[in-house]
Amino acid sequence: MKDGIMDVPTYEDMLVAHERIKPHVLRTPVRRSAYLDELSGAQLFFKCENFQEPGAFKVRGASNAVFGLNEDRARKGVATHSSGNHASCLSFAAMKRGIPCHVVMPRTAPQAKKDTVRRYGGKITECEPSTSAREAVFAEVQARTGGDFVHPYNDPRVIAGQGTCSKELVEQADGLDLVVAPIGGGGMVSGTCLTLSTLAPETKIIAAEPEQADDAYRSFKAGHIIADDAPDTVADGLKVPLKDLTWHFVSRHVSAIYTASEQEIVDAMKITWKHLRVVMESSSAVPLATILKNPETFKGKRVGVIITGGNVDLDRLPWLT
Amino acid sequence: MKDGIMDVPTYEDMLVAHERIKPHVLRTPVRRSAYLDELSGAQLFFKCENFQEPGAFKVRGASNAVFGLNEDRARKGVATHSSGNHASCLSFAAMKRGIPCHVVMPRTAPQAKKDTVRRYGGKITECEPSTSAREAVFAEVQARTGGDFVHPYNDPRVIAGQGTCSKELVEQADGLDLVVAPIGGGGMVSGTCLTLSTLAPETKIIAAEPEQADDAYRSFKAGHIIADDAPDTVADGLKVPLKDLTWHFVSRHVSAIYTASEQEIVDAMKITWKHLRVVMESSSAVPLATILKNPETFKGKRVGVIITGGNVDLDRLPWLT
Repeated sequence: MKDGIMDVPTYEDMLVAHERIKPHVLRTPVRRSAYLDELSGAQLFFKCENFQEPGAFKVRGASNAVFGLNEDRARKGVATHSSGNHASCLSFAAMKRGIPCHVVMPRTAPQAKKDTVRRYGGKITECEPSTSAREAVFAEVQARTGGDFVHPYNDPRVIAGQGTCSKELVEQADGLDLVVAPIGGGGMVSGTCLTLSTLAPETKIIAAEPEQADDAYRSFKAGHIIADDAPDTVADGLKVPLKDLTWHFVSRHVSAIYTASEQEIVDAMKITWKHLRVVMESSSAVPLATILKNPETFKGKRVGVIITGGNVDLDRLPWLT
Repeated sequence: MKDGIMDVPTYEDMLVAHERIKPHVLRTPVRRSAYLDELSGAQLFFKCENFQEPGAFKVRGASNAVFGLNEDRARKGVATHSSGNHASCLSFAAMKRGIPCHVVMPRTAPQAKKDTVRRYGGKITECEPSTSAREAVFAEVQARTGGDFVHPYNDPRVIAGQGTCSKELVEQADGLDLVVAPIGGGGMVSGTCLTLSTLAPETKIIAAEPEQADDAYRSFKAGHIIADDAPDTVADGLKVPLKDLTWHFVSRHVSAIYTASEQEIVDAMKITWKHLRVVMESSSAVPLATILKNPETFKGKRVGVIITGGNVDLDRLPWLT
């Protein structure tokens, strides 16, 4: 954002991002399953971002932000507030460049999340679990360190980075009729829009969202951003609301937003583990849940599915609780 | 076996097998994890046979046997006795060729295993859960159908097929110092020996076995086959004993057999799910368990690890029971 005018990333920015992050992120494989094809009636191409070393597509946007800093900015490092994959992916990227990463996290965040951030060298400052506390503590940290703020999704560098995922997907699986990605804050979906609207404009983009956190769906219908206060869903990576930059892309390029119930998400998660044999998060199961629920849209089609992440508490699997 | 002389498969047989099965099996990816490299002190290259459609490397040997039959033999189909991955992989290969597959299974086998065989068109004949009952019923089924007997591992076509896995591994990860594979009946290890002894003779082959089913380890030390009666281990794919053909390869080409405890196997399984983010069987965790247990052997080395299968009961994970 500059002077109140949105700094919307361009297709060129995405191409630059891809060259920039290539040495630092994995070109993830696309996997298929005859069983899941049969079940859905579609040809499904799963882009396995859960295979990234820190376990999520967010390493793309984070790496683009970190490696795009000039030397002066880089010395002061980066800063963010997040208790999820963005925090660990930004720490991972900063560690790779050898610069500091400051993360503000609620003190109530799971110990495993804190451990991962620390394993990648991230410096955690804890705050009380409220928005006002987080903002106050973050302002203090940023003022003290001068770290460059990298928002989890509402940042043009982040969106350009996430867009590299569907560039690879199109190279790996041509002629896709549709691409389905989960939507929370809209970073991955915006990156997908950015890339496909130029590279494969005939490919439709579907966003998949939990019924119990359907703020993007309602925003899409209303024509403006509606933010939920505190949605609750098993797909815990998808609770955050759209922001102006992601709304820009979602409102222009997404064909539809489909929703799935909690049970449908858990079922799709388990069936993917069983037949694709990958460990993925519940948030990543929302696309398949919506595909199985809407056969009329997907039948006979070539469909890209973004498996966004694979950081799961293996002691607390949702179909066993 | 022919006239009491072993029909030992050759390197040429493996090359023929690879061409034959290429249209029917997946060239599985090799995956890496910076975390697991750091933990082991080695460079680990995981060959993901769990990604085969029916979930196990056994689809290679089964496909080689099925697609190698001439038309006359093929019409009568194939037959085997197995309650594990061989039964479903042979059914899968037979389904692909459009020929019958007869499987003798103990009536006490898990319903999920029976369901998978039937999903691939396999015809199950149940028997009482004893060796004598199984042999009698199998003799009857074979006499009635004329199906070609494909043993789960003690068959030259099967061993030649399994050998195609390490041919791909060497193409995907060059300069390997060691390859580690789990050992039960020895089909995968024998195929690995067959291939590497010609293609990469400087690469050492380590077999990994559960302490609680260490008949191969004791055979290796004794210099002749020792069969356990009824070993019990979480790595339930590895309970079967060596036979003459697999002993031929194991006794000539394996450098060492390492064992791991039940807890070490379960820990290695969980850590692989968490950091490599793949769903694999407990049997497939034995190699990593032995690698972590014997750092002096593996430190600084380039190590291939065969992830043999991914058919897991997701409702009964061993670290949760």
